[in-house]
Amino acid sequence: MRATVIHGPGDVRLEDRPDPTIQSLGDAVVRVVRTCVCGSDLWPYRGIQKTTAPHPIGHEFIGVVEATGAEVSAVQVGDFVIAPFTDSDGTCVHCRNGITTSCVNFGFWGHTSANGQALDGAQGQYVRVPFADGTLVKVPGTPDVQLYPHLLTLTDVLATGHHAARSGDVREGATVVIVGDGAVGLCAVLAAKRLGAARVIVMSRHEDRQRLARTFGATDIVAERGEDGIASVKDLLGGIGADSVLECVGTKESMRQALGSIRPGGHLGFVGVPAGAPELPMQVLFNTNLRVAGGMATVRPYIDELLPDVLSGTIEPGRVFDLTLPLDRVSDAYAAMDERRSIKVLLEP
Amino acid sequence: MRATVIHGPGDVRLEDRPDPTIQSLGDAVVRVVRTCVCGSDLWPYRGIQKTTAPHPIGHEFIGVVEATGAEVSAVQVGDFVIAPFTDSDGTCVHCRNGITTSCVNFGFWGHTSANGQALDGAQGQYVRVPFADGTLVKVPGTPDVQLYPHLLTLTDVLATGHHAARSGDVREGATVVIVGDGAVGLCAVLAAKRLGAARVIVMSRHEDRQRLARTFGATDIVAERGEDGIASVKDLLGGIGADSVLECVGTKESMRQALGSIRPGGHLGFVGVPAGAPELPMQVLFNTNLRVAGGMATVRPYIDELLPDVLSGTIEPGRVFDLTLPLDRVSDAYAAMDERRSIKVLLEP
Repeated sequence: MRATVIHGPGDVRLEDRPDPTIQSLGDAVVRVVRTCVCGSDLWPYRGIQKTTAPHPIGHEFIGVVEATGAEVSAVQVGDFVIAPFTDSDGTCVHCRNGITTSCVNFGFWGHTSANGQALDGAQGQYVRVPFADGTLVKVPGTPDVQLYPHLLTLTDVLATGHHAARSGDVREGATVVIVGDGAVGLCAVLAAKRLGAARVIVMSRHEDRQRLARTFGATDIVAERGEDGIASVKDLLGGIGADSVLECVGTKESMRQALGSIRPGGHLGFVGVPAGAPELPMQVLFNTNLRVAGGMATVRPYIDELLPDVLSGTIEPGRVFDLTLPLDRVSDAYAAMDERRSIKVLLEP
Repeated sequence: MRATVIHGPGDVRLEDRPDPTIQSLGDAVVRVVRTCVCGSDLWPYRGIQKTTAPHPIGHEFIGVVEATGAEVSAVQVGDFVIAPFTDSDGTCVHCRNGITTSCVNFGFWGHTSANGQALDGAQGQYVRVPFADGTLVKVPGTPDVQLYPHLLTLTDVLATGHHAARSGDVREGATVVIVGDGAVGLCAVLAAKRLGAARVIVMSRHEDRQRLARTFGATDIVAERGEDGIASVKDLLGGIGADSVLECVGTKESMRQALGSIRPGGHLGFVGVPAGAPELPMQVLFNTNLRVAGGMATVRPYIDELLPDVLSGTIEPGRVFDLTLPLDRVSDAYAAMDERRSIKVLLEP
């Protein structure tokens, strides 16, 4: 098969790799129908995260089951499936607690899993999925091709935006601030609106992203940053911070912005992968009774919750894709996102 | 009146102070029936917190209303009342959100309030209570003297233990670890049990406190600290951490202990006043989806929730008092707690 391999900064290549086969009784092999590039793929691409040896890359895919091991029962050959960005067994204590990202058999596509298996990357033609029963979600029937982009967001960005909203305890009538206007931040807008937020303020300086944020339900845009940004948020909210702030960036600055925008007793939902040592100052949390939750999105259980709204067309998260390329132009896809010419690139194998 | 004044490390004195009078339409004057010494009073007593000028001290009291301003309607002369350790107006946006500790008119007994009023300390014969309607809670009828110690814990330690349990999301059937065996930690045991915890593990090295912890509902005691303590907790819980960990100390070591004892996706409820720079490492929170909440206890709304169980004798939090002294021996009370001869000292004016 053809699959994407990262070799180092700025160097992703579509290469020939062995076709995956069933290796364990719980495996499935999935033919990738759509995949995409994630903001976090840019970290090794930009050299911020070191690539010590070339490895497959990409962690978002939807596809069709091509083969299954003898013990797989939840999906069968021909099923259209969604794969969360992590592989999980669905049976360990952490999976039963809903924290699939802490599964004892945890795996992240393109990397070695906790139990020592080399996992395929998602930016390729096929992926072997260990623990298929615990990981894959079957889409009923045969989804229309128009639905593919929307379904693909369930693998990561929509579920992660939803994780921010759930972790930030967004409720009916709440005031919400979203820090970050990337695909995750934009999906967080959609998720907050879906959970009934009355006011959704998005911090964004890019016109195209502001437009999409409004389409997704943002009521206000704040372009300023730092203290000015915090002041603008409070101006919009009658002098106090928001009930919920969703942090979708992960830097020191974005975390400060987020903490400064919450009201006493409010909630911080954070999903930005920590980079550059963002801080949670204990004394501030103590004095103002802030509540903090978040982390790596527990995608698997969220898909069950979100899929019906995607299938019915109630939400259209796939609008975050503003560029579609064939898989053999994967290198151009990375460049477009790296240069911020695109919010998120869809790839067609 | 006679009231306690702190002058510096190791130096608390009962002195003559002016009898409080009504100064504003919303004031009440309360005759103190019982007061006590708090672990946090030991900070200035030990010199860890600087005392720049002598000031009244003590923040826990119950008593009888002696006088009221013209606009006070929730309590009247002769009412038996409980005062939270903070003064709050009950009407500002933060009070309406239940975060009385962020009240725009916030005050802490013995200190200058946010609006510039010098507040009496609780370790004296009388206290003037601004915003009496927002602050005081009337106890129905005339409580029996046997109930006084239990009612007194509602002003701080029981409400703070309960805040830890609520912030730590303790639920029916949960596994809970309590870090800290002071009066607050012990009340957290009671609070966790009251909310239905199935397993309550208390980290304690003192036999008398271990005994009281068991009386309050602890199912297990762990005497080890550090990595050994964490290992013992996990041994008790089948290899994983607890659903909820309640941090009731506030040091770097106790916070590490707490974070190490939570399962992925579990809750940390912290009420230990931060001292010695305890840390919340973002990457750990992110990787394991820990949820963190807590801070200064929002006592006022909790009293409504807890008072019925105290009045009915369902819980007996006043058992944390293991020494009773007359107010004129307040200096001995501080020494007894400082030297750990007593968990908590009750004072009779």
